[in-house]
Amino acid sequence: MTVEFWWQQATAPLSAETQQQALERQSQLTKPPGSLGQLEDIAVAFAAWQGQVKPQINNPQCVVFAGDHGVVAQGVSAFPQAVTVEMLKNFVAGGAAISVLARFHTMGLSVVNCGTAFPADQLSGVIQRAVMSGTNDFSQQAAMSNTQALQALQIGAEQIDRLHGEGCDLFIAGEMGIGNTSAASCLSALLLKQDVNALVGPGTGVQGEALSHKQQILAQSCERARTLADSPLAALEQLGGLEIAAMAGAYLRAAQLGIPVLVDGFIASSAALLAVQLNAGTRDWMLFGHSSAEPGHRALLTALDGKPLVQLGMRLGEGSGAAVAVGLVQQALALHNQMATFAEAAVQSGN
Amino acid sequence: MTVEFWWQQATAPLSAETQQQALERQSQLTKPPGSLGQLEDIAVAFAAWQGQVKPQINNPQCVVFAGDHGVVAQGVSAFPQAVTVEMLKNFVAGGAAISVLARFHTMGLSVVNCGTAFPADQLSGVIQRAVMSGTNDFSQQAAMSNTQALQALQIGAEQIDRLHGEGCDLFIAGEMGIGNTSAASCLSALLLKQDVNALVGPGTGVQGEALSHKQQILAQSCERARTLADSPLAALEQLGGLEIAAMAGAYLRAAQLGIPVLVDGFIASSAALLAVQLNAGTRDWMLFGHSSAEPGHRALLTALDGKPLVQLGMRLGEGSGAAVAVGLVQQALALHNQMATFAEAAVQSGN
Repeated sequence: MTVEFWWQQATAPLSAETQQQALERQSQLTKPPGSLGQLEDIAVAFAAWQGQVKPQINNPQCVVFAGDHGVVAQGVSAFPQAVTVEMLKNFVAGGAAISVLARFHTMGLSVVNCGTAFPADQLSGVIQRAVMSGTNDFSQQAAMSNTQALQALQIGAEQIDRLHGEGCDLFIAGEMGIGNTSAASCLSALLLKQDVNALVGPGTGVQGEALSHKQQILAQSCERARTLADSPLAALEQLGGLEIAAMAGAYLRAAQLGIPVLVDGFIASSAALLAVQLNAGTRDWMLFGHSSAEPGHRALLTALDGKPLVQLGMRLGEGSGAAVAVGLVQQALALHNQMATFAEAAVQSGN
Repeated sequence: MTVEFWWQQATAPLSAETQQQALERQSQLTKPPGSLGQLEDIAVAFAAWQGQVKPQINNPQCVVFAGDHGVVAQGVSAFPQAVTVEMLKNFVAGGAAISVLARFHTMGLSVVNCGTAFPADQLSGVIQRAVMSGTNDFSQQAAMSNTQALQALQIGAEQIDRLHGEGCDLFIAGEMGIGNTSAASCLSALLLKQDVNALVGPGTGVQGEALSHKQQILAQSCERARTLADSPLAALEQLGGLEIAAMAGAYLRAAQLGIPVLVDGFIASSAALLAVQLNAGTRDWMLFGHSSAEPGHRALLTALDGKPLVQLGMRLGEGSGAAVAVGLVQQALALHNQMATFAEAAVQSGN
């Protein structure tokens, strides 16, 4: 393959040897084979990722990427656009859902401004990487230029480079951006080659007539973009999401540097699909945190062959659905590493 | 109602006032209404249970009740009966799945011998309350007498009295007993008035011809017991489970003393259904930890109107499915208690 872009470089290899050893260990633990279900699969996956029979998570990190969406001018969101910057403050101050969950898990939390409509450059504690003041209204024109898309992808890669240097061993990408279920719905429709109306849902609160209006605007936008978007990168330019681009860039770089990612809900999964379409090897490094209440998430999970860890009817974003699942991942490793074997405990195994 | 048995005494009341205040608080937190899904419901339920707008869990406790089943003489289990006692040692030594999970959550773990077939009275660290050396073979006769059933129910109540005195604020009942999916399947079939073959599954490892044999034995056992079991208590006597009885007794007493319980999988849910049929108010104090891979669990959850927190394909017992969900409950409370309101964070709420 000709390598034109950084994300086309190979992703990190998995260790088939420690994966096999971990499977062997699972079969010796004092429980019926398979009785810990998905928790067994997680432990074995981490063994393959870390090249260790007893893998550990010591440094989970979450980065919330924020960006605004010009399409909100069409009235597709229940919240005013100023909320994006207001929530950035809330993340940093510790009052948002993801702030609480990061504290709960002693997980690092960083917040990156990828391009908000309202000024955010005075906010201390926010990493400033604004590409533009929110995307263009994609119902009328491309959300961003090719240069801006490349820049936004790079934001995510840069965060992973930083976290890799700090020893991060589990990564969650979160997002904040009023209107971003609209962008994720349209982008997913193009990447999945599906009708956007099968994917679009209430987002964080659009109902009734307003939902019909949202569906109409998004259908028109996809119609406009479809002929122009002849590649995943072109689809991103057309329908955007600076924060979605940054998340995809983060997933791509994490897979190259060998950091497993726990994918959040609908928006994050649209970024995950983009990443996988840009480099298929990225999929090897993904776990899926939760199943969102947003209807399009199911189609994305199917396309990604993702098996979410929890189904709690959450639809908040920020990385919150992945964050609630961090404890399940840690418990999977604790069980794998700490349970006694049949021999150690002098317990007879089954027939 | 004439009160003949201790478990018919009223269960503890919920606080409608703090429940309403907690709902009001949820509507003010910096998130779209309902976007934390089931985690919101859990927080509100704890507010009603504890009579506090900001409820806390400080002392979660798990008790594993162990008992043997005479019906294993019919070849319905993949493991030899000696494993029950061997696993008791493993629980106490810290090598079993529930031991690891209790450590992970800093949750207390007690182990109670309700009646094992092999001697266990020399095991230090195990609370000795053996009613009999395992139940009778219920394919041939009643699993236990009325007196033995009352005694087994009392074991659970006694543990709750102890834990209540120690300030327990979340209770998990776990179980260990080779053959107890057989007992739970038959007991559930009678309590639900359903065909046992719709409920019975592989348990911890029975497959193929052995599974057909298990199904045949259990169908015959239900046939024998059905006409004799004219009440939930009589069903328990017929099809037993000393540990199932103790779990039901624990659920009943927990509801009377106002301790919320997190119900584990199939066996625990059969005990939960028994408890609810003995005193309907018990249901008010129940949360459901996980959805088991055992087919009968779905029927029990439907009958109990229970919405499990995780679906991980687990089928181990010991309380493990409920234990993995403890962190989700704690996160629900952390979010409820620690998130900023729209006013506190100066964030605009939606339309």
